[in-house]
Amino acid sequence: MTSEEARARLEGLGLEENAVAVLLAHFEDAERRDKKGHGFSRVPWLETLDFDRGARPLRAAAEDGFERWDGNGALGYLVLDAIVRATLAQPPAHARLVVAERCFPSGVLGYWVRQLAEGALVAALTATSPRRLPHPDGGPPLTGTNPIAIAIPSSDGTPVVADVSMGAVTHGQVLAEEASAEELVPFGGEQSHKAFALAVGLELLVSALAGDAHGAVLVVARPEHDPVPAFRALAEGRRLPGAQSVS
Amino acid sequence: MTSEEARARLEGLGLEENAVAVLLAHFEDAERRDKKGHGFSRVPWLETLDFDRGARPLRAAAEDGFERWDGNGALGYLVLDAIVRATLAQPPAHARLVVAERCFPSGVLGYWVRQLAEGALVAALTATSPRRLPHPDGGPPLTGTNPIAIAIPSSDGTPVVADVSMGAVTHGQVLAEEASAEELVPFGGEQSHKAFALAVGLELLVSALAGDAHGAVLVVARPEHDPVPAFRALAEGRRLPGAQSVS
Repeated sequence: MTSEEARARLEGLGLEENAVAVLLAHFEDAERRDKKGHGFSRVPWLETLDFDRGARPLRAAAEDGFERWDGNGALGYLVLDAIVRATLAQPPAHARLVVAERCFPSGVLGYWVRQLAEGALVAALTATSPRRLPHPDGGPPLTGTNPIAIAIPSSDGTPVVADVSMGAVTHGQVLAEEASAEELVPFGGEQSHKAFALAVGLELLVSALAGDAHGAVLVVARPEHDPVPAFRALAEGRRLPGAQSVS
Repeated sequence: MTSEEARARLEGLGLEENAVAVLLAHFEDAERRDKKGHGFSRVPWLETLDFDRGARPLRAAAEDGFERWDGNGALGYLVLDAIVRATLAQPPAHARLVVAERCFPSGVLGYWVRQLAEGALVAALTATSPRRLPHPDGGPPLTGTNPIAIAIPSSDGTPVVADVSMGAVTHGQVLAEEASAEELVPFGGEQSHKAFALAVGLELLVSALAGDAHGAVLVVARPEHDPVPAFRALAEGRRLPGAQSVS
């Protein structure tokens, strides 16, 4: 699918102009970073979803150090875009926790925190999604793939963006038959109890703050230091997270 | 080493009574949870360290949603204990980010967040430590083992506590010759780029907020929901993080 076709089909869904632009920019970025499962393949998927085309997220509570948003039926992409733009427009004096209730699908989390880091904020974002990962001992799926993305701005102009899902493969790879459903387990092989523990911790953290529906939790803060340039030098040219993203 | 011997040797270091009690309680808990590398074995290690026996952490900034602490030469255990007690004494209205500068050693992170969850707060804590993990492609050590611990309170009385280090083995295991130095790499085998990405993200997050010296970053929030009992039911008796901790 071309970008032009994706735009036409999103417009065909009845989404308003700004919503089309937000989704298209996200899908184009995912394609560029070779995260095909989060790219244009989502357009036909959205065409199968029943959602309110005109819904807009609401900011239900706003203090300098805490905000609560309600997706209010809008696609998660639009909720996270609204949060990113509101945060960049009015950054916290020091730090802010943002809870997003009813925020699905959330897309590539690194995409959202990179924008915050490009706006000179440190950011960490996690989000829940349908339960797909079982316990390492087996049984029913207990948690989403529950990625966490962390972005740190740099005076050299390029943030470091770590974006890690707790699954050994992605749901998108299963849908595309690049991986079997049995491979969608916590990553880490013999040490998959570690990725499972992180998936459980993130699942319950988001659920405790945002409720049963899929949600997201963002922490943003103003950095006091600029550690990235020295870290890049220490890495001696080895590829750091976000230069090409970790799926 | 017995608890009594550990107490006598900590007193012999010239630590004041409260400091001895804090360290001893942490080491005893680590022994009970079979985290020997964080238990009494740390007493002879502390005896080799040059540190200010009477130093106390300072709270340099305090707002409802943000605090900054300075270890001020005190052992990291004492810094984190002071932060936990101050947080329980005065929890945030909604959420708080706490930055701890000069906070080393930080001990078992799950130990600190468990106390916050037993006090009805959701908590996530990470901390940096000496660089020990190399890039998956090799080269010099770039990050600490940089654990992250997440605790969620539960109306059933027992929090879930996920506490995951990004190393395949611990530095303590290397010291105890239970593992070789070559095994101290990001966990995950073929997918160790994921644990490495998390270690880098956490390293730079803490460094951007707390500076070059080892530090810690804590997020605490009041939960709005109680997801743990239903999650335990879904897990059908399988062991969840924190029932026996993940090293």
